[in-house]
Order: sequence, then structure tokens, then C-alpha cells
Amino acid sequence: MGKVPLEKSNPKEKKTEFSLVRVKNTWHRRLGKQDNTDTVDSVSDAKLYESTTEKGTTWTVVSPIVFTYKIIETHNLLDARNDTLLLGHMTDQQQVEDIRELSKPLKRFIVVDQEVYKIYGSKLIAYLEANNVIYKILALPTTEENKSIEMALKIVEEVNNFSLDRRREPIIAMGGGVCLDIVGLAASLYRRRTPYIRVPTTLLSYIDVSVGAKTGVNFANCKNKLGAYIPPAAAFLDLSFIRTIPRRHISNGLAEMLKMALMKHKCLFEVLEKHGPMLLDTKLQADNSSCVTATSPATHVAIVTMLEELAPNLWEDDLNRLVDFGHLVSPALEMTVLPSLLHGEAVNIDMSYMVYVSQESGLLTEEEKQRIISCMLGLELPVWHESCTMELIEKSLQDRVKHSGGLIRMPLPVGLGQAEIFNNTPYEILRRAYEKWHYELSSSVKTDLPTPPNAASLPSFGK
Amino acid sequence: MGKVPLEKSNPKEKKTEFSLVRVKNTWHRRLGKQDNTDTVDSVSDAKLYESTTEKGTTWTVVSPIVFTYKIIETHNLLDARNDTLLLGHMTDQQQVEDIRELSKPLKRFIVVDQEVYKIYGSKLIAYLEANNVIYKILALPTTEENKSIEMALKIVEEVNNFSLDRRREPIIAMGGGVCLDIVGLAASLYRRRTPYIRVPTTLLSYIDVSVGAKTGVNFANCKNKLGAYIPPAAAFLDLSFIRTIPRRHISNGLAEMLKMALMKHKCLFEVLEKHGPMLLDTKLQADNSSCVTATSPATHVAIVTMLEELAPNLWEDDLNRLVDFGHLVSPALEMTVLPSLLHGEAVNIDMSYMVYVSQESGLLTEEEKQRIISCMLGLELPVWHESCTMELIEKSLQDRVKHSGGLIRMPLPVGLGQAEIFNNTPYEILRRAYEKWHYELSSSVKTDLPTPPNAASLPSFGK
Repeated sequence: MGKVPLEKSNPKEKKTEFSLVRVKNTWHRRLGKQDNTDTVDSVSDAKLYESTTEKGTTWTVVSPIVFTYKIIETHNLLDARNDTLLLGHMTDQQQVEDIRELSKPLKRFIVVDQEVYKIYGSKLIAYLEANNVIYKILALPTTEENKSIEMALKIVEEVNNFSLDRRREPIIAMGGGVCLDIVGLAASLYRRRTPYIRVPTTLLSYIDVSVGAKTGVNFANCKNKLGAYIPPAAAFLDLSFIRTIPRRHISNGLAEMLKMALMKHKCLFEVLEKHGPMLLDTKLQADNSSCVTATSPATHVAIVTMLEELAPNLWEDDLNRLVDFGHLVSPALEMTVLPSLLHGEAVNIDMSYMVYVSQESGLLTEEEKQRIISCMLGLELPVWHESCTMELIEKSLQDRVKHSGGLIRMPLPVGLGQAEIFNNTPYEILRRAYEKWHYELSSSVKTDLPTPPNAASLPSFGK
Repeated sequence: MGKVPLEKSNPKEKKTEFSLVRVKNTWHRRLGKQDNTDTVDSVSDAKLYESTTEKGTTWTVVSPIVFTYKIIETHNLLDARNDTLLLGHMTDQQQVEDIRELSKPLKRFIVVDQEVYKIYGSKLIAYLEANNVIYKILALPTTEENKSIEMALKIVEEVNNFSLDRRREPIIAMGGGVCLDIVGLAASLYRRRTPYIRVPTTLLSYIDVSVGAKTGVNFANCKNKLGAYIPPAAAFLDLSFIRTIPRRHISNGLAEMLKMALMKHKCLFEVLEKHGPMLLDTKLQADNSSCVTATSPATHVAIVTMLEELAPNLWEDDLNRLVDFGHLVSPALEMTVLPSLLHGEAVNIDMSYMVYVSQESGLLTEEEKQRIISCMLGLELPVWHESCTMELIEKSLQDRVKHSGGLIRMPLPVGLGQAEIFNNTPYEILRRAYEKWHYELSSSVKTDLPTPPNAASLPSFGK
């Protein structure tokens, strides 16, 4: 090709590995590995490589950043005697004790979804007052339509006015997935990273958003086109918030739970299949009768299966992700019909179609397919949508290929509670699956989904 | 204190460590360490901890993300036969060879500073055309005054219209530090992280911005208040760009070089002291007569000393940073007098004052102080500014304390080429140092700094 070769292939290249050691406050590079730490204060996990050719020097920096975050189940988060909300994110127990002893007022900036604020605002204020906190509460309409960079910047502006210590005073987000995503992005941008805390108040954010590292806002009519991979310092899970959300939002959350069940947990699928209506009726407030095992209720299994997939791939460097099931076509569908479908509903419609693709590919039996669709209906989730056309599916899958390193990487169930990633599903199968899906489900499901609830139509909240 | 204790201090706590192993495409947690990898496809570096008390379960995720980036010196970056600009960021040599063989057109989005574009635009276009690249060039006025989130979003919008493969098609930034910072943030936000490449065209960005992981824009009249810690995929350093920048901008870059010299490299200081005017005259284009040693010209030493400090602390988790020297008071000063001081000039004024603080603290002798100030003057850098008042200094240092975990963490030279971090410098010393600094330097330096060059007044560029 007549190109100047890159340094790497040059036989004259001289490559040297350096460790990095600290003496007092100054870092120095040292040749090779440094096992003897007697003469230095510390040795870094980072490495520095230097290679020299006649064309110049190349340095390669290899620097690991370790993310540590906690997901804490708690009861009565807003009980003044529970200091989880204020101190639960801390990792140094001594520091926690010191703060408790000192009784110096803490400072917290809290972003709350507007609807959540209507219900829990006074309780939150009472909590903060009782704990002598210097606080600012910002209540915002964190709907999918408002999930924008403008709202993230509005938060940043208020945070800046409030004058936080960005190292020690985390920003608290309280609401559904949209609220947690926007605040996560705002915090990640502010001073290049300010710790934040997630308090999910919906089932979907409880088992999904709170578990991972992703933040984001919509941009140019595309879902989560801008964002960051910065996990919260902690997520505080109080299942009692779920008690007050509408039934439709329980279904919405169960869709993401069903996703994990279909991908990797047959037992969780069987719980959803058998107890779906009961979970909806009790809003998961029941005791452990909904257990998968004696010690793990359904929410636990959902969280652990998610963590298993997310923790080793926090920044999504591996593009083969089972958690993407239901998320190939649904982003475009959700944005197209906004605000008529909730996130989990759009995900479920995507999963429903993909189940047909699996069956058409011979990966699921007809009986397994029917069990899954029946389970979805039992969870009161939509399994078909007129706007989910073959054109939208094709366009979405093409986009997927473009943004996944040239492969489609389609997670598909292969039996119940097991899945694999496929790259070569023929168009003919996608088309036949679509026709069958359309034929079997378009007439069987109610096409007039309930309109999304607004504040006025919400059922009464509280105890 | 009557508080509900945190899980961590609970003696009834049961804590379990899990490894994460992959079998086919599915991740599973397994008890304890997993050394036997025979039965699994891979073992993650991430860990999952679960602890249970009567109050619920706490999961802790520990997940390392490894950042790898290259800093490559090259000549004739825009020579059509040099494919560094297109392929130099890649780490897999086989992939590079494949791309060369395939001859499939590459796609690149390039953001260039408007003034740089005036000089190098036609050369850049010729390069891209000769290499059969599908490209879009966005030329922007990337000045400090325009360093805003709006400009970052403008870039994101254009990138989105251009439809990049965010995994394989890095965004290229070409310009000074402001340009590289804005593009870095835009790329980091787009789809939660799109690789980007830095091509510095000023001395300051060559030895400073290109080396690290920081991106940012100004917000609410504060310097770099919004940003991210995401390093580029690569920085390509071609010293010949420096040949065409105005003399004042060479001084500007030498200020950051002097910073590293004062903090940790006496020999580099002596080079700047002795050869400063020559470096300015030759615009660092000379052969190795400006060497610190036979193999390391001043730019190398500046880069390596920076890398030593940055690589072990890429996300600035350690707040004790020598590289902050000159950056405690200068951000406020720079923003206050915008656009009259260049970044390195503001940094130098800050360093000049801090040298007086060092001397007043007994850390530097009067002679050492004078040598440093003389060196600064030899580099044609301002050593005093009327807007750098004691009030501004105090306010800046108070801000520093607030955002550095309650300590001032002031790097100060202790002798030539050595430094330490100080937390307890009395106000009296800061005040006396200021008075002396004001007395000795306010009259000795020219107060009418040259106004910043604009396109019309730039000297002629090119060969």
C-alpha cells in the first residue's frame, strides 16, 4: 500500500515498560515491575510504555479506574431515625462514626420527580429537618418527553448556585428511571464527576436503572443519545415506594424482570408465569410467598441476574449483551409513539416479536412461545403494537449493526431461561416471524392501551 | 446518636464475595475466587459482594475499567503517505493490516479550530481525499469565550447527522487546548462514549492537554465547570504545527513546561533558564541542541513528567496533585480578565505569586526565587497582574478548600525542581508574600501585555 508503517510493526522499535512509584508526593517512572515497595510510598496499578523508532517516541498509558458502588435494601428510608439516605453511600465506617459524633450539619442537594414530590415531599422535608440537613430540593417534571440536556443543565445550574462540596456531598435523585438518568448525567458532568445517589420510586427503576452505571438524556429524537457510564455512589432501595405507583407501572417494571428471566433464569420465569397476577395485585408488597427460593424474592433474583451481566461489562466494551434483549427495536418504537408506551411496555413488545423470531428459528418450541406470550399477558403487558412495523424493525436492526461493530448481536431465548447471541438470522425468518406475530397477536390484544396516568388521575397515595 | 446503624457495623451481617465467570454468553456469579478457568470461558476482574442483615441485602459492585491510550510523535502528519491520523489509534496490528488491504473507504468526522483551518484546511482536505476518506470537517471558533456546552452540543448534532459508527470511527479534534477539550467532551457524551483523537496545534496543548484524560467546557463563568475524565484513543504530536504559531503562544506553552520543571525536574528548569530565549526564537524546531540529555528534548521531559503524575491518578481521586501548581488562583484570574490573558500566562502569574509564598515560607532561598522569576521573564511570561488581587487569591484558595475535601493541598516548590503539598500555610505568609510580590514585580513588568492575536494579525503561516 506504500504507507509509512506504524511504529508497532517496526523491527527497529525499542519498547520499554515502566512502573509508576510514589516517593512523598511525587510520582516517578521506574523500569520494569516494582515488587519491592520498601523504598517507595506506593506503586500504582497504572503502567507507562515508551517505544522509540527513528520517527519519534510513542507513549502508551494503561490506567485502571475502579468503580465501587453499593445497592442497599432498606426499610423506611424516610424515617428520621434511618440515616441511610445521608450516610449509606459511605465506605469508611470510621468516617461515618465521625460524622455521627460531630453533629455538624450535612448539606444535600436533592432532585425529586414532581409527582413523587407531591406525595413524599413533606415526608422528605421532615426527614431533612429532623436530621439538621442544609438542603435544597428541586422538584422537576422528569418525564420521557423532558429527558433532555436542557433539564440536565438546569440541574447543574442549581447545584452550582447551591455550592456543594463535590467530593463529599452527593447529589440525591429520587424518582423513576428518567429522573435517575438525568440527575446521573448532570452529576457526572458537574466538575467532571460529582457523586450521586439513586432512590428509585418505581419498580422499573428499582430493578433496572438503579443497578447499573448508565446515565443519559434523549437528543435529536433518539433515546439516551447523550450520556455517561458513571455509576452512582449508591442506590437505596425501599420497596415501599412501589406500593403507591399505579398498577400499569408495576407491569412496566415486571417487563424488565421478565427480560432477565427469559435470558437466564427459568425459575424466575416460572414465578412470573404462575404468580404474575398476584405480584400485580400485591404490588410486590407481599411477604416471601412470591419467593423464587426461601431466601430470594423475585426482586432479588432480578437484581442479581442484572448485576451478573453488568458488573463484568460496566462500560459495555463487550457488545454481546444479553441485557439488550428487548432493546433492539423498542427505543425507536418508544420514541415514535411517545408518550403512549411506557419503557417496559415498548421493551415487552420488542421481546414479544423476538420470541416469534426465536420460534421461527427453531430455538423455541411453539409451546414455549405460547407460555411466554401468556405470561406477558398475565403481567398485563402489551405484546403487539401497530407502530411496530416491519419497516421500523428493519431500520432498528440496521442501526444496531452500525453501532455494534458491524454485527447485529441479537440476543434470543433458546428454551426458557437461557439465551444466546445470534448474528446471522436471515431476513426471511425476521419477515415470517413478523407476519406470524402480526397475524396471531394484532387482533388478540386490546389495541387501546390505557393512556398514561397524569397527576390528576393517579390513585390516592400514602399508607 | 440513636440512629439505625448501617449494615456494615452490624455483627449479624453475613458477607459473601462472588467472582464473575462467563460460560458462553452468560455471566454467573460464583462463590469466592475462581482460579480454575477450565470450566468457564472467562473470569472477570469485577467482583460482587453480598451482605445480608435482618434489614435487607446490600450488594457492592467493584468493577475496574482500564483506560489505554497512546501519545504518538510523528512527522508530516498531513503527508498523504502517513496513515497515523487514520489508523494510529488502533491497537490491534492485524486489524490495521486488514484495513490497509481492504481499501474500503474510512469515515472520519474532524473538528478543526477555525484559525487552524485557514492555514491547514487545504492540506487536510488533500490528505483525506488522497486517502479516499468519507469525511466531514467542522471548522469552529474554539476560543476560551466560546468554550461552552452549546458548542459541544453543536458538534454532537453534526456528528449525529454525519452518522458515525461510534465504535470504529473516532472523532478527530485538531487545534489548541480549547478545541481539544470541547471535542473531547462532545465525543464522551455522544452515545455515552465515542472514541476521539487529539491533534494539538499549539505548544500548550502539545505538552499539556494531549497528555491527560480531562475534557471540559466553561459554565456559569467558571473554567471547565462541566466535563469528563475520558482520555482520547490517541494523541498525535507533530511539532511542525508549532512552527506557525505566534511567539506569544510559544511562551504560553513554555509556562506549563516550566510548571513541570519547578515541580519535579531541576534539569528541565536549567534548560528553560539557560535556553528559554533560544526556544522562543526557534519555536522548538531546532534539533536536539535544546536537549536535556542526548535523547530527551525538553518536550519529551515535559510529557514524561506530566504522564508520571497523571497516569497513576487519571481521575484525580488523589487530591494531592503537583500538576495543580499554578492552577489554584489562575482559573479565576483567567476568567476575570478574559480574553486578555492566555491560559499559560495566567498559570505563570499564579506560579510567580506562589514562588513568593515559598520563599516567604522558607522553602526557597531569595536567590532561587530570583532565578525562577528571571527564567519566567526570559520566557517572556507575565509575572504579575493587577487583577490578581489579594481578594481574588483568598477567594480562590477558599474555593480550593471547598472542592478538595476540606484541605488546601497547595503544591509549593521546595528548592529547584522539587515540590511538596502544604495544607497549613498561615494567612500572614500569604499576605506578606502578596505584598512583596506586588512591591517587587508590579512596577518591573510591562503592564500593557500584547492583546491576543486574531486572525488578521497572525503572522504568515506555512512554509
